Amino acid sequence: MFTLPQKDSGTPTTSLGSVSQQGLHSNHGDGLEGECSRKPDQKPLKLYGVGDPTAMFSSDSPYLSSRGSVIKWFWDSAEEGYRTYHMDEYDEDKNPSGIINLGTSENKLCFDLLSRRLSQSDMLRVEPSLLQYPDWRGHLFLREEVARFLSFYCRSPTPLKPENVVVLNGCASLFSALATILCEAGEAFLIPAPYYGAITQHVYLYGNVRLVCVYLDSEVTGLETRPFQLTVEKLEMALEGANSEGVKVKGLILINPQNPLGDVYSPGELQEYLEFAKRHELHVMVDEVYMLSVFEESVGYHSVLSLERLPDPQRTHVMWATSKVGSWLALGVLGEDFGMSGLRFGTLYTENQDVATAVSSLCRYHGLSGLVQYQMAQLLRDRDWINQVYLPENHARLKAAHIYVSEELRALGIPFLSRGAGFFIWVDLRKYLPAATFEEEMLLWRRFLDNKVLLSFGQAFECKEPGWFRLVFSDKTHRLRLELPLLLIPNQSDLAVTVLGDDGALNGGCNGDKL
Amino acid sequence: MFTLPQKDSGTPTTSLGSVSQQGLHSNHGDGLEGECSRKPDQKPLKLYGVGDPTAMFSSDSPYLSSRGSVIKWFWDSAEEGYRTYHMDEYDEDKNPSGIINLGTSENKLCFDLLSRRLSQSDMLRVEPSLLQYPDWRGHLFLREEVARFLSFYCRSPTPLKPENVVVLNGCASLFSALATILCEAGEAFLIPAPYYGAITQHVYLYGNVRLVCVYLDSEVTGLETRPFQLTVEKLEMALEGANSEGVKVKGLILINPQNPLGDVYSPGELQEYLEFAKRHELHVMVDEVYMLSVFEESVGYHSVLSLERLPDPQRTHVMWATSKVGSWLALGVLGEDFGMSGLRFGTLYTENQDVATAVSSLCRYHGLSGLVQYQMAQLLRDRDWINQVYLPENHARLKAAHIYVSEELRALGIPFLSRGAGFFIWVDLRKYLPAATFEEEMLLWRRFLDNKVLLSFGQAFECKEPGWFRLVFSDKTHRLRLELPLLLIPNQSDLAVTVLGDDGALNGGCNGDKL
Repeated sequence: MFTLPQKDSGTPTTSLGSVSQQGLHSNHGDGLEGECSRKPDQKPLKLYGVGDPTAMFSSDSPYLSSRGSVIKWFWDSAEEGYRTYHMDEYDEDKNPSGIINLGTSENKLCFDLLSRRLSQSDMLRVEPSLLQYPDWRGHLFLREEVARFLSFYCRSPTPLKPENVVVLNGCASLFSALATILCEAGEAFLIPAPYYGAITQHVYLYGNVRLVCVYLDSEVTGLETRPFQLTVEKLEMALEGANSEGVKVKGLILINPQNPLGDVYSPGELQEYLEFAKRHELHVMVDEVYMLSVFEESVGYHSVLSLERLPDPQRTHVMWATSKVGSWLALGVLGEDFGMSGLRFGTLYTENQDVATAVSSLCRYHGLSGLVQYQMAQLLRDRDWINQVYLPENHARLKAAHIYVSEELRALGIPFLSRGAGFFIWVDLRKYLPAATFEEEMLLWRRFLDNKVLLSFGQAFECKEPGWFRLVFSDKTHRLRLELPLLLIPNQSDLAVTVLGDDGALNGGCNGDKL
Repeated sequence: MFTLPQKDSGTPTTSLGSVSQQGLHSNHGDGLEGECSRKPDQKPLKLYGVGDPTAMFSSDSPYLSSRGSVIKWFWDSAEEGYRTYHMDEYDEDKNPSGIINLGTSENKLCFDLLSRRLSQSDMLRVEPSLLQYPDWRGHLFLREEVARFLSFYCRSPTPLKPENVVVLNGCASLFSALATILCEAGEAFLIPAPYYGAITQHVYLYGNVRLVCVYLDSEVTGLETRPFQLTVEKLEMALEGANSEGVKVKGLILINPQNPLGDVYSPGELQEYLEFAKRHELHVMVDEVYMLSVFEESVGYHSVLSLERLPDPQRTHVMWATSKVGSWLALGVLGEDFGMSGLRFGTLYTENQDVATAVSSLCRYHGLSGLVQYQMAQLLRDRDWINQVYLPENHARLKAAHIYVSEELRALGIPFLSRGAGFFIWVDLRKYLPAATFEEEMLLWRRFLDNKVLLSFGQAFECKEPGWFRLVFSDKTHRLRLELPLLLIPNQSDLAVTVLGDDGALNGGCNGDKL
């Protein structure tokens, strides 16, 4: 096997509080909406956990190596919901009673804008003089465009350089490559949890690298904190815990805007996390895949590339990508931010040339078509379209969809977290679990699926509080109008009887106003 | 580190002959052209060798893991020739005295046909209904098209099935994925050498899998044999040798048509190799990337998928890919066969669903754009264009270029191997080495590069006889007319004085007629 033994542990004496203490303070302004009573039967939360991605592994294959069997098992187990969904996909005309997907974080609101732009004649170019063997880092013309694009949209204090850019087929590949080149097999990265769960596989399947979760919880401990807030103290404790177990930590992964929380880090917070990493000689991988999907003007988003001075530039690596989920048939462009996850395009920005070269060396396995590189460059340089057409319209549509969904949630008294970035809302359904266990969370998830709604449950994000769900709202409003009743109303009596137990109606108990 | 200790060994008692015995029999009809005197100072050849990809490794990076340093080192060392080339690329107008690339195995003869077809309006489709999260194996419509295409062109006895097809971004990725899922770290695949050398990295960089070379040599030992012929006896000895060193061999890689030999296996030979593999429970990976580039009608090519019965279908995996080298800017299509290595498209065909699923699970790191999948399907189904336009014209052009280059070689008395498949000729320049060493081979290679011709030297293919070079002929004739004098004539006096020593003129000593 290719895992180290691990313990999923925490030190009770330093526990940061149990769920029973987690009153969600109703007059705190940072995004958690609704306040609900906590169950008293929940255990104290752990501070950190060293991941064992194969803890549940079964089903060896006689034809595969042990790691091959694990890789196959990840496919078999992780895709259950999606397989069910694909067998009964909702379609307005052909399958109106099919399953609606609120689980995949894709932006489906701007197909029309993208289709129109991508169908323009400048997008298809086949020219022999361009058909040459390129640098595996990506064609220079594209890296130049990416550097200009990131300089502008990340507001970097000085222009970013094309030689620090590596282009590849998505963020998943970039995690895989970085894990492999920065860590030995069995070593680890720190990551605040809940986090986009697929990263577990991305660093493990090829790289055999594990994640040490820095568990965050919903408790608000003071005026200066917000739910699921990351602090340097928590980072220090998780690092110390991992070290004490003999797990070598080589880096820290930050997702900003965060997935699934929709949270963004302030420049001060970013600076603190980077200083922490520098103290411990940790690489920092900053995933900024949603950086242009901050649709709420009041949210001041700051890319790590906007900082005046990076504490440890040789160990700071920025990721921007299009292809974390899905593989669209059409040319998807500019990734999550542009609602085109199928384009298979991602970039690394790093000043460290050893890292850039090592990733480039792996790019022969993560290459993307020259045509797509050409099209990406075309799109990145079309600032008129991006600034005057795409971004304003996309933000307006995201905002409208967000308002619609959050108002529905409020009306139903369901608390949620959402700060106006990303495509999702982090929904607190804890009160509907008869017991605060992940078994109950899974039962609730299956109940939604039985009722033709695919959601993502919190355990998939390594959330330690059972009962949180991620709901993707970036779909067409007419579909959301269809979906929300499906999601909520028809389940209401159902849930009230079979899941909620004696907890009462769905829309009772909580104030839906924005806090 | 992530390598096992290894010995590069062979048993003298079973050595299959030394170079001094290797008369290239002049009346043997299977492809080696020209017969030259051998040097008597060459050592006996080894039978097999367990590869140690990091034998020459140096230059640790303080920022990278040990495997990351190795991955970076592969980039730094392997790309030397290409970097030199890219700094001084030949261009008819802009840089007519630049370096001509006869090293990269790409077909540059049919840009016009491909450009025309790929610029047609059916190639750019952006449709929201198609923009959904797909199966990572590849879109079903494409896998159906691939199954139909391979059924037809491989002449399979029964129709091939879409569920046995996995689509990904090229052959390099497929080697990486198969190595990882079939082997534990440190295990090995058998491969007849000389072979396309990049496979060493493909199975090693992520998978940490090594290659056990089955060394072939140019000696013809009887009427039924040909130079560099693979036999079951050689496979058995290499397997036994590896086992005796404690190296676990999990599979056999076959390239058919072979790269760099341009050789094809007869159905009888294929059957023998597959039976050998079955006896030892070895997986067989058959790389058929040049299957449609057999331009000599007299060469009867047989895909492994054409066999009436596979000895061990659960362990037989067929690869067809477009993207072993290069990453063209334009949409390259149908891979090496279609001269479009930059498309980043490859397919696996296997009846083993465990293997297909495990590879699919890794496809999130080897995904290709949905747009490219659509375009691939468009092209694969356009049989009129393939059969009536592309293939006849491409074969005619390959044949003409091949005739031109081989006649030049004959006129210069340079022996070579070429059976009418692929884009390259395996050229015997042994007589121009003052000593039969790889140092001298490298000196000759650098001399060519200094004279603005980039070739591939035999050691890069793990050839054990110093002095063989691969020459890619699939370039425009007007360029070849330029290239060959550059390659041969200006070097002649040069070589005669400084490299050939007292061996005489380039075109002396050998009969250039086809043997």
